[in-house]
Amino acid sequence: MTTILAMEYKEEALHMIDQRKLPHTYEIFIAKNCNEVDFAIRDMVVRGAPAIGAAAGYGAALAAKTFQHEEKNVFLLKMEESLEKLNKSRPTAVNLMWAVKRMKKLIEIKVELPVKHLADLILEEAHTIVREDQAINLVMGNHGNTVIPHGATILTHCNTGALATVGIGTALGVVRTAHQSGKDIFVYADETRPRLQGGRLTAWELMQEGIPSTLIVDSVAATLIRDGKINVILVGADRIATNGDTANKIGTFMLSVVAKTYGIPFYVVAPTTTIDFEIDHGSDIVIEERNSEEVTHIEGVHIAPEGMKVYNPAFDVTPHENITGIVTEKGIIRAPYQENIIKLKCNDFR
Amino acid sequence: MTTILAMEYKEEALHMIDQRKLPHTYEIFIAKNCNEVDFAIRDMVVRGAPAIGAAAGYGAALAAKTFQHEEKNVFLLKMEESLEKLNKSRPTAVNLMWAVKRMKKLIEIKVELPVKHLADLILEEAHTIVREDQAINLVMGNHGNTVIPHGATILTHCNTGALATVGIGTALGVVRTAHQSGKDIFVYADETRPRLQGGRLTAWELMQEGIPSTLIVDSVAATLIRDGKINVILVGADRIATNGDTANKIGTFMLSVVAKTYGIPFYVVAPTTTIDFEIDHGSDIVIEERNSEEVTHIEGVHIAPEGMKVYNPAFDVTPHENITGIVTEKGIIRAPYQENIIKLKCNDFR
Repeated sequence: MTTILAMEYKEEALHMIDQRKLPHTYEIFIAKNCNEVDFAIRDMVVRGAPAIGAAAGYGAALAAKTFQHEEKNVFLLKMEESLEKLNKSRPTAVNLMWAVKRMKKLIEIKVELPVKHLADLILEEAHTIVREDQAINLVMGNHGNTVIPHGATILTHCNTGALATVGIGTALGVVRTAHQSGKDIFVYADETRPRLQGGRLTAWELMQEGIPSTLIVDSVAATLIRDGKINVILVGADRIATNGDTANKIGTFMLSVVAKTYGIPFYVVAPTTTIDFEIDHGSDIVIEERNSEEVTHIEGVHIAPEGMKVYNPAFDVTPHENITGIVTEKGIIRAPYQENIIKLKCNDFR
Repeated sequence: MTTILAMEYKEEALHMIDQRKLPHTYEIFIAKNCNEVDFAIRDMVVRGAPAIGAAAGYGAALAAKTFQHEEKNVFLLKMEESLEKLNKSRPTAVNLMWAVKRMKKLIEIKVELPVKHLADLILEEAHTIVREDQAINLVMGNHGNTVIPHGATILTHCNTGALATVGIGTALGVVRTAHQSGKDIFVYADETRPRLQGGRLTAWELMQEGIPSTLIVDSVAATLIRDGKINVILVGADRIATNGDTANKIGTFMLSVVAKTYGIPFYVVAPTTTIDFEIDHGSDIVIEERNSEEVTHIEGVHIAPEGMKVYNPAFDVTPHENITGIVTEKGIIRAPYQENIIKLKCNDFR
């Protein structure tokens, strides 16, 4: 387990660790209504696919609280508007759309109930999403731990820990599990330009846990992989197509190419909510382009020349053939992905 | 040609553009003696393999000026000490060692001359190194231009321009030549963490020249390469082994792996002075590790948590099998590299 809580609902508001300010300032951002949650997602106060999903759940709950004294038709209209806005706060992480859809479905099923009662149920559903994510992280940690050798050196990218989820994390949850099971692991953390989630957030989590680790700039990873210094690579995911192609933080694809070239196991760790069953192929995933200031400025300091053009995609797509396995709460999915992912859906899935 | 002058010897001192401060502050760093040149190389006031070589030449000239009124045996001893110190100012770029060796040889050959005369010759030799580098850059530009298609989109890494040399540059010299020959090129510049030579220096040079270009974080390159957005990759070199293995700025190797995977031409552009005939294989090249503050701080702002360990190699080695060709002033060397590099040496080479 971990004592880091990316978010907590209390005193009728969503309290989030302000991840824009870590590791130097530990500050709580309090969202008292849905618009403030929407802002927190857009501006990356909260980030990481599962955490965004959970935050969206609370965004819905806060919208419901705001409108709980309205007539039902007004309430339904306002909820529809709020959920649509939340849905568009960031485009790539499917967990966001999944959480919104879950709330829409709940409202649809329970539409006959009084408004106040509906609002209470929506908050309860948001809490349920959190508890589910916590449990899922623990199970993924156990599944993932089976592929970590004793004494392994693990390479990870971006932040996939307690800050990216509401539990122990996805890829970093596996790292935590391996560490807690006494495997004597060592972690290299990519700093992950442009937002430096690795250097700021993963480094912070690793230090908090006392896991032996070293920070590198993203392009150092290739040499470590070639020179046999890495035993396994663990990354998260923002959206997975049904053929296994995976959108994740920019830089993931590059790692996967080098890993494949040098035969190093490359695992994606993500809950099955990250699978988008409406998308067959990675090329159909919308990749968010963020503003150029993320590249030209670091912590407010201008680094590139004034007026220089920037291309700043937040994610890239790793083709399924570069992925050794996808660690989910239902087990590790391996190739053939299309077949095994559909099998997963046909079984007990949602 | 270009109007940017990385260094200029005047008023008995070496005037260098302070590359630590670009692009926001254009400041001249004046080195009045050899120790100040030594500092400028170590602290990266001046950087780029050919520019370091030229600066070392002037370092020797300034040492000779300092000691020109000494007895000859004292002069020779002091020069020996100064050259040894310069030789160790940075470990990877072989041009530095080459320039030092050239000065040692000159002193050896002309040892019978009066000290003052020797000092004058050393300064003249430093000027010669500069003129040679300028000419070599122009010739490399022409050779390199033969592999650039009309309308090409070129990817480049680090800074290999006028700031890295004393002429139009190596890889960026080819870019300048292609642009000036009206080829309607477009350039993607990797920002090149940790020191951001791409974002700070290459972006600045490209804007000065009016070459259409866009800045990316290093890990975006992989997606551009896969998606067919890049026609050719041009990089510089800090040291080339006789089998063609090339040490260059950290991140070069990663690009070469992706380029090879997706069949994109990958050229190294470097003068033959960058070839180290004493080294057979890239694994024998000493890779400089620089301090962790380059990663944990950007422009003085602390980004990683206090106490986080860092691994910060300044260079990596690209194996010759990932290199399409090495553009030198003597033409483009292609595989088999060992054979063709030795052929080069046996011909008219040094």
